[in-house]
Amino acid sequence: MMTSDWQEKCARRKQAQLESIPKEWIIQCPPDDQLCVTNVPTQCGLLSPRELEITNTVDVEALLRKLQTAEWSSFEVTTAFYKRAIVAQQLTNCLTEIFVEKALARSKELDEILKTTGKTAGPLHGLPISLKDQFAIKGLETIMGYVAWIGRYAECDSVLVEILNECGAVPFVRTNVPQTLMWGETHNHVFGRTVNPFNRYMTPGGSTGGEGALLAMRGSPLGVGTDIGGSLRIPSAFCGLYTLRPSYERLPYCGAVNALEGQESISSVLGPMANSMSGVKIFTRAIIDSRPWNKDPLVIRKEWSEKEYRLEFHGGGKQLCFGIMRDNGVVKPHPPLHRAMVMFKDALEAAGHKVIDWEPHRHLEIYKNSETIFAADGGDDYRIQCGLSGEPLIQTMSPKEDAHESALDEPLVKTLVGKPHHRSAYELWQLHKEKRELRKSHLDHWEATVKRTGTGRPIDAIISPAVAYPAVPHGLNTDSFYTTLCNAMDYSTSVFPVTFVDSSLDKPHPPHEFYNHEDEAIHQLYDSKLFDGCPVGLQLIGRTQEEEAVIAMTEIVDEALKIYKAKTGRR
Amino acid sequence: MMTSDWQEKCARRKQAQLESIPKEWIIQCPPDDQLCVTNVPTQCGLLSPRELEITNTVDVEALLRKLQTAEWSSFEVTTAFYKRAIVAQQLTNCLTEIFVEKALARSKELDEILKTTGKTAGPLHGLPISLKDQFAIKGLETIMGYVAWIGRYAECDSVLVEILNECGAVPFVRTNVPQTLMWGETHNHVFGRTVNPFNRYMTPGGSTGGEGALLAMRGSPLGVGTDIGGSLRIPSAFCGLYTLRPSYERLPYCGAVNALEGQESISSVLGPMANSMSGVKIFTRAIIDSRPWNKDPLVIRKEWSEKEYRLEFHGGGKQLCFGIMRDNGVVKPHPPLHRAMVMFKDALEAAGHKVIDWEPHRHLEIYKNSETIFAADGGDDYRIQCGLSGEPLIQTMSPKEDAHESALDEPLVKTLVGKPHHRSAYELWQLHKEKRELRKSHLDHWEATVKRTGTGRPIDAIISPAVAYPAVPHGLNTDSFYTTLCNAMDYSTSVFPVTFVDSSLDKPHPPHEFYNHEDEAIHQLYDSKLFDGCPVGLQLIGRTQEEEAVIAMTEIVDEALKIYKAKTGRR
Repeated sequence: MMTSDWQEKCARRKQAQLESIPKEWIIQCPPDDQLCVTNVPTQCGLLSPRELEITNTVDVEALLRKLQTAEWSSFEVTTAFYKRAIVAQQLTNCLTEIFVEKALARSKELDEILKTTGKTAGPLHGLPISLKDQFAIKGLETIMGYVAWIGRYAECDSVLVEILNECGAVPFVRTNVPQTLMWGETHNHVFGRTVNPFNRYMTPGGSTGGEGALLAMRGSPLGVGTDIGGSLRIPSAFCGLYTLRPSYERLPYCGAVNALEGQESISSVLGPMANSMSGVKIFTRAIIDSRPWNKDPLVIRKEWSEKEYRLEFHGGGKQLCFGIMRDNGVVKPHPPLHRAMVMFKDALEAAGHKVIDWEPHRHLEIYKNSETIFAADGGDDYRIQCGLSGEPLIQTMSPKEDAHESALDEPLVKTLVGKPHHRSAYELWQLHKEKRELRKSHLDHWEATVKRTGTGRPIDAIISPAVAYPAVPHGLNTDSFYTTLCNAMDYSTSVFPVTFVDSSLDKPHPPHEFYNHEDEAIHQLYDSKLFDGCPVGLQLIGRTQEEEAVIAMTEIVDEALKIYKAKTGRR
Repeated sequence: MMTSDWQEKCARRKQAQLESIPKEWIIQCPPDDQLCVTNVPTQCGLLSPRELEITNTVDVEALLRKLQTAEWSSFEVTTAFYKRAIVAQQLTNCLTEIFVEKALARSKELDEILKTTGKTAGPLHGLPISLKDQFAIKGLETIMGYVAWIGRYAECDSVLVEILNECGAVPFVRTNVPQTLMWGETHNHVFGRTVNPFNRYMTPGGSTGGEGALLAMRGSPLGVGTDIGGSLRIPSAFCGLYTLRPSYERLPYCGAVNALEGQESISSVLGPMANSMSGVKIFTRAIIDSRPWNKDPLVIRKEWSEKEYRLEFHGGGKQLCFGIMRDNGVVKPHPPLHRAMVMFKDALEAAGHKVIDWEPHRHLEIYKNSETIFAADGGDDYRIQCGLSGEPLIQTMSPKEDAHESALDEPLVKTLVGKPHHRSAYELWQLHKEKRELRKSHLDHWEATVKRTGTGRPIDAIISPAVAYPAVPHGLNTDSFYTTLCNAMDYSTSVFPVTFVDSSLDKPHPPHEFYNHEDEAIHQLYDSKLFDGCPVGLQLIGRTQEEEAVIAMTEIVDEALKIYKAKTGRR
């Protein structure tokens, strides 16, 4: 069979990527059937002890302090993370753009500034930052998983990159995405499939899956992704990371490429991913402090609020009341998620907070409204982009070989939205009306919890799974039921890691009365041996534009969980 | 000819409106050919001297102080304004819902609260407030100019009304609008045409034209309208008032009825109209201080910022630099507008500020994009609402009798947007992409003025006409070229009165090289005798979500103009 033109293009581009890796950074990889690879960076011998010390520093604040005091130079920090990122790449295929020289030159420039002026270049001085393959960098291609976009070199930086540079950061790699961005996994024809470093049989999630795998390998101290239905939170949950999905237009998206461009009913947002909450906070604050509304006209003119961060509208954070959504009434979570929620409740109550039940409210209706909006172009956006090169539109994330047997023929979303067709602008307006009514109804439902909290306030945040399961085998992640709620309602939401699947504790539950065929399929998928060792994260759902409060509450939760784990010996 | 069903419904509803007026408030009206009626309230004898003193108090802060100290009771203030509003109604046909008993009962309730508790009910204690016919009040009809909506009684208050009640205000009348809301004049089949009290041959503008006429008659101390393309600013300019068009979602629209519902590309916003800036500020601040985001999920969680009101990002307001847009390159303003801009420049320079030229930037492109978005449903929204009752869709605001000769057969907007047709959701997304690019381009253009101001900042605000002319004869207002810019770019914008047309000063200009046929028609329309005595207002255009700064800058401008007029003896 002849290789088609688009396949040749992909092969050439993949080869060019390989050649962009310094030869001396090529490692002896473990065999493909070694599932967990998180220890390889420490064992492969490429990184020096000091480089391991640097890259194992998950607290971004601590890292920045060492950079600010020149205890560590930006050059050595960037080199260390670059080496580890390249190790991650060889094990999980998480990267797209690799530009070692450019990043190292930039790091030297920053070292020079600190040396000659005694001052840092900004609040992120010297910090290497990885970026999802949407954030255009002048002079580099922005391929975003489309063959036709190979060779599109950016004429200017996206606003985020402009601001990161002004803040003294070092953008150093870009990371992989799924074709179209609208999958909760990460695979495209140009750069291929990214796998989960905790278990390579599993997906790292998506669409910010490249960041998920890279950060889980500690190949970056801080990554930036995007989220329109869970794309920051799914990979964060699957890879044991912290993230923040900010509200629409709080952070500057201008100049980044995107899927469904011009779709503004449910806006994609950008946010940080990291191995610590300090990374999440520092990034969010630095970007807001740069007054991004002067560069991106859509960004909300709202300064970072210390008052909100001090939780002044949440009783000063002294006694918070959380509402746990154990089950959204659409798909029931796997046993490890239930255990994580029990840990959460025990840990937070031990810390003096309250935990009550959240009653799901019109969850499926909200989900259906969102998915119908996303499909309003009848798929034109994807078809047009694929059509430019002739590459086929990917129909499943399941690998041809090594596929797990349980893929759903027809996920619930297809049943809900129906066959693809073009909706008119007027029909879209009717979906907006419906969405507004749903948002008002959900807000009133939230406000009404004031009767049950005993704090004089409605619940301070909702706690729920981000996904009904830990990372699943490639091709099986169809659940965005827990995450899409926050995009539709525009709730500021974090994800934080809680525990790991433990086959000795997380026994299968007996069948329940299934809500639908997908709920049944998810129930059947659970196999404690298969999932053993995978990270388990939860979402903390705050109100719209409550980024500061959500960060502060997640810090409180994180601290309470750490104390609880230390006391109980659990992990 | 038989009267059709919808006409009978209109006649009955209009009769019911007439019957809702207390008989003793019916005045002897001046003859129809008396054009200016602003003096009638003082001369008709219905209002006592004290009632005239109350209703002539244009400073809302002063009015509230007297209410707070019980020097004036809410009952007498509400009665006074109600009587004057009913006079205004008889002269200009500005009202829709009249509910004297309900409002007076509410005012007594507030007086009782103050008397028994010694405390006011809220920051707007006892203040009567008029509302555009969109803001639903429980138990009242919300007709909004559609015959089919007669008999639709609201089951609950709109969020704005809920908040006004919590603030201690007295919603006391609702005011007229054009059918569809999408006209810059005010006429519908149910309640008929509203006329301009400065010259009844002229339109008060629209769509918030009922408020315009009512406030110009001082029949209300404070009104609330909405703006999607100029609907607050056009009537404010035509009626000599102050207003603020806030940015999208700064103030709570939830629960108000609307045209083109679900159209969210360019959101309609609500704002105050008043005879003083103190009214504009007090309303805006009271609503924001009520934390409306807890009731309306779309409202931006941004507290009132004293820092922004103190103009900390505008050099403390000490030396502002304004950019004057003398001409937007689409239609050239009439001579009185030019004189108003010269007055502005002289007054502000005399007060120590700087005034430079603003170069219009892609003005027509922006206008075309907006108008294409508004028409994306091919007119379905209007047709469906009219179809419910069988009333015809109004094609012109020109009266059949007493029409001025100069109506344009085809305003520029029709040439630009083309024949009505249904656009797809995908096409709408492409318009959004275009709009985003235009917003970025306009923002960068604004930022680039930093090179020309000499203040170290870009210009602090743009000053421009709100409309190319003062109020025009009914049927002739086709210009929203100056206002739509702000809706499209989401610039926070005020309108303030500057002067009145003076036929001895405002001589016709010689023909210029016309930009288009509408520019030519507008030029030819100018006739200094016809326009003599009409108010002339300007816009102050600030950045997105800069409501506090725009209010503060307008206060500075207003003060400078008052000092300038006092010194020069101009009015």
